[in-house]
Amino acid sequence: MANRMAKVSIIPLGGLGEIGKNMTAIKYGESIIVIDSGMMFPEEDLLGVDIVIPDYTYLLENKSQVKGIILTHGHEDHIGALPYVLKDLDVPVYGTRLTLGLLQGKLKENHLSGVNLNVVKPRDVLKIDQFKIEFIRVSHSIADAIAVSIGTPIGSVLHTGDFKIDMTPIDGDTIDFHKFTAIGEQGVLVMMSDSTNVERPGYTMSEKSVGETFDETFRLAKSRIIVASFASNVHRVQQAIWAAAKYNRKVAVVGRSMINVVNIASELGYLKIPRNTLIDIDEVSQVPGNRVVILTTGSQGEPMSGLTRMAMSEHKQIQIIPGDTIIISAVPIPGNEKSVARTIDHLFKLGADVIHESIAGIHVSGHASQEELKLMLNLVKPKYFVPVHGEYRMLYKHAKLAEQMGIPAENIFVGENGQVLEFTRKKGQLAGRVQAGRILVDGLGVGDVGSVVLKDRKQLSQDGILIVVVTINRTDFQLATSPEVISRGFVYVKESEKLMEEARDHVKEFIGKCDQNRMKDWALLKSGIREVLSRFLYEKTKRRPMILPIITEI
Amino acid sequence: MANRMAKVSIIPLGGLGEIGKNMTAIKYGESIIVIDSGMMFPEEDLLGVDIVIPDYTYLLENKSQVKGIILTHGHEDHIGALPYVLKDLDVPVYGTRLTLGLLQGKLKENHLSGVNLNVVKPRDVLKIDQFKIEFIRVSHSIADAIAVSIGTPIGSVLHTGDFKIDMTPIDGDTIDFHKFTAIGEQGVLVMMSDSTNVERPGYTMSEKSVGETFDETFRLAKSRIIVASFASNVHRVQQAIWAAAKYNRKVAVVGRSMINVVNIASELGYLKIPRNTLIDIDEVSQVPGNRVVILTTGSQGEPMSGLTRMAMSEHKQIQIIPGDTIIISAVPIPGNEKSVARTIDHLFKLGADVIHESIAGIHVSGHASQEELKLMLNLVKPKYFVPVHGEYRMLYKHAKLAEQMGIPAENIFVGENGQVLEFTRKKGQLAGRVQAGRILVDGLGVGDVGSVVLKDRKQLSQDGILIVVVTINRTDFQLATSPEVISRGFVYVKESEKLMEEARDHVKEFIGKCDQNRMKDWALLKSGIREVLSRFLYEKTKRRPMILPIITEI
Repeated sequence: MANRMAKVSIIPLGGLGEIGKNMTAIKYGESIIVIDSGMMFPEEDLLGVDIVIPDYTYLLENKSQVKGIILTHGHEDHIGALPYVLKDLDVPVYGTRLTLGLLQGKLKENHLSGVNLNVVKPRDVLKIDQFKIEFIRVSHSIADAIAVSIGTPIGSVLHTGDFKIDMTPIDGDTIDFHKFTAIGEQGVLVMMSDSTNVERPGYTMSEKSVGETFDETFRLAKSRIIVASFASNVHRVQQAIWAAAKYNRKVAVVGRSMINVVNIASELGYLKIPRNTLIDIDEVSQVPGNRVVILTTGSQGEPMSGLTRMAMSEHKQIQIIPGDTIIISAVPIPGNEKSVARTIDHLFKLGADVIHESIAGIHVSGHASQEELKLMLNLVKPKYFVPVHGEYRMLYKHAKLAEQMGIPAENIFVGENGQVLEFTRKKGQLAGRVQAGRILVDGLGVGDVGSVVLKDRKQLSQDGILIVVVTINRTDFQLATSPEVISRGFVYVKESEKLMEEARDHVKEFIGKCDQNRMKDWALLKSGIREVLSRFLYEKTKRRPMILPIITEI
Repeated sequence: MANRMAKVSIIPLGGLGEIGKNMTAIKYGESIIVIDSGMMFPEEDLLGVDIVIPDYTYLLENKSQVKGIILTHGHEDHIGALPYVLKDLDVPVYGTRLTLGLLQGKLKENHLSGVNLNVVKPRDVLKIDQFKIEFIRVSHSIADAIAVSIGTPIGSVLHTGDFKIDMTPIDGDTIDFHKFTAIGEQGVLVMMSDSTNVERPGYTMSEKSVGETFDETFRLAKSRIIVASFASNVHRVQQAIWAAAKYNRKVAVVGRSMINVVNIASELGYLKIPRNTLIDIDEVSQVPGNRVVILTTGSQGEPMSGLTRMAMSEHKQIQIIPGDTIIISAVPIPGNEKSVARTIDHLFKLGADVIHESIAGIHVSGHASQEELKLMLNLVKPKYFVPVHGEYRMLYKHAKLAEQMGIPAENIFVGENGQVLEFTRKKGQLAGRVQAGRILVDGLGVGDVGSVVLKDRKQLSQDGILIVVVTINRTDFQLATSPEVISRGFVYVKESEKLMEEARDHVKEFIGKCDQNRMKDWALLKSGIREVLSRFLYEKTKRRPMILPIITEI
């Protein structure tokens, strides 16, 4: 029995105030369960950064209490930080078959072995310390997605994961209404729910509607069809393959991640590929255009992906030819609009017909719209509500929605990463903060790129650098040789010799005026050179390159 | 009379295959008329570039033939290059009053005086050499916008400019249907038409519909209202002022460009401000919240604009307070989605209620949708058709639309900047190319930032720079002192001393192995150092900073 003061704490470590790097810790007594461990792609101001992961210091500081990591599904924003987290934390990981299948590929790439992976199924029940953990099937834009209910002695915490309510899912398995209503009936203490599409009224269309658009497009296409989609959207891929089979087309799979997912998903039985449908990419040229479908990546205009290479005429095996029908079955993620538009332009120029987001039904979202969010709130009827998985305005609007559904405003918490939410049977409250934020990964460096490096990269990217090498004779503190002035990314050097000479003259003149004391104080000397040059260059060019004086003594 | 071989040439210098930097030259005989002279904002890969203007070499090479520049309206993508172009070309400029009013401000900022500016009105007729030029009123998201008909002895060329067909415009003056039908009746040889919204089915909503949304929002708001919009959207500003007046609110105008446009537009009579409506920004605090409207810029999340500063709590005079209603009456221009989303998030966090694009009717486009484009084609019935003002896919789709409307495919030209289109009475054809493209403006430098500088900035922005200074004794060709290794934007120096030391050791070791010949050949020496270091650093960090060896001899 739990005592009166018993409490469960929710510690969001990522995914609040942002779309990406989802990670939430749930604590009861001395035990912590972590839900998801995602990464996100860097904002444009994080120059040179490859990926961003949550700051998981809190987990390291409470290492002995962390009993497991539960994955709701296999998207990068839910599993992408695991290769980093698992280097520091040796805990069991729980997820459905496809999720772990995708994770294994990632772990292998990162040379991580010996991870304790545990396959769970919807409706499985898992007991860890005082937690009773249940997995509940949901629909999403990847197969095998689950919600998680974490039972504690004072009540259960339900995390919906990413979900939509698809009445006609591709695999026939709808979201587990019965389980959601059952736990709702038992009483849910806290619900965390996906806020991504809270700004969309109505219902999100069924994945099946994309199949109808595929069917229509495949029926009309007179030559090759190229379908670009997220590799992980197994049901989308399934529908393209079904349409291909229906219209007697062979399917070639192109692009590393698409090949990877098709392999894993078909091995695990999530993707059903009719016999004799797949052909090798090298066989494409031997099949008539109207008998071919090419499945590829690049729906976001990513530079190295299949479709982007084809659009730039840089793909080794596939050249776009007039008459090709290209289906981009996705919408651009915010930030990718321009690269997607560029890809489409190139494809049109090569004579292809491109079917993209401006055509209805070529893509549907994997997240619940307002009416579905309301349905979830009605089924579960939680006492406390914490909107998650969204930028601040989405969390805010989800909170308002819940208020309209009858949850008292004081029982709704729009949180921030690192802000601890504490719940007893009777009360919910903010309970301080733990360290949270972002860790920047650049190459092999995890966390070594910080604000200083980023500030420098920013300045370098805008106006380049000007380096002045001053060689000083240590015997008389005079210039040993004329200063060298070198620039990169500032002006086109070949056409700016005069400017560089004038810059050198300014340095010489300045040093000529310095007394011996100043010549000995390098910090002073450097700041003087910087000042003189920055004034001169700004006046001449209205640019502010980084000015880097280097003094060597001989 | 024109002879059989007489021809009119259309030379697009900007605006094809892109949204921005519109500029078209029309040539007949030995005379050239230029329509618009716009700029565009740089794509994200043009690091440090401030603005992009069309390469107008063709105009300079044919200076004596250029007889005038006609402006269709006052948006930056139509007038923004003039301060540069007019420095090199002394030709008369023609535009409506508001357009020239906005231009004058720009010219003043750029210290350009003595420009030959000529105000024209819709239905004016202007004769220049053999051209008979007529101006035709259209609706757009700025007041006083016109289409231009350029009559030549072999037929007329109609350029729609940016337009929509607003049946209930704010100023009551609809697009001049009668003139369009009249010139259509006379016969138009070539039409160039706005392709921006060709992907949108149906009609673009009337500007007036935004007024209805304003009315509803103003009626319900209980405290201050802040409206952010494009300053140049005079009709939008007018509707905000009307709504303010109706609900007894005072209006404060904030932000340099908003103040500027409100001044110009009200002086010229395009904006009607009821007496005693305007208050100074300093007076805002003295008026109750429910009696205030603040008009400002920043609808695109631009870093220095009014709304963005308020959102970041950096605005000197206006602090956002809970209860404020903020109306963002615009949609993000592609590329600005993330900065707009960030602004909205900050405003919500400060307790404001933000009404933005997710709410219907808070913004309408200024460009014609499919049905309006069809109507224009039907009214004008041109013999030849050239879609303009759009990315390639939009031009392509506009061409398809025109084909559906009965214009033969061979009479439709999807052109490119610099590609000359030549029309006789009987024939239209591609006729070679002239120099065209983009000129990058960075600070005072016009055209001095090219691919080398951009490539350097790119590399610097991703992984920074590592500089190695090697001082060589000219008597014995030995190191005079230990090499210096300095980095910026690569790793956090204070935590990377060991890495830097190892890098220095690698350079020393390499130089130790060089024979005297190599020590004399600096190019060889530098490439050796670069190779050794780049291999070492990549192995250690998986980053590729720019490596810059500097050799000084003493």
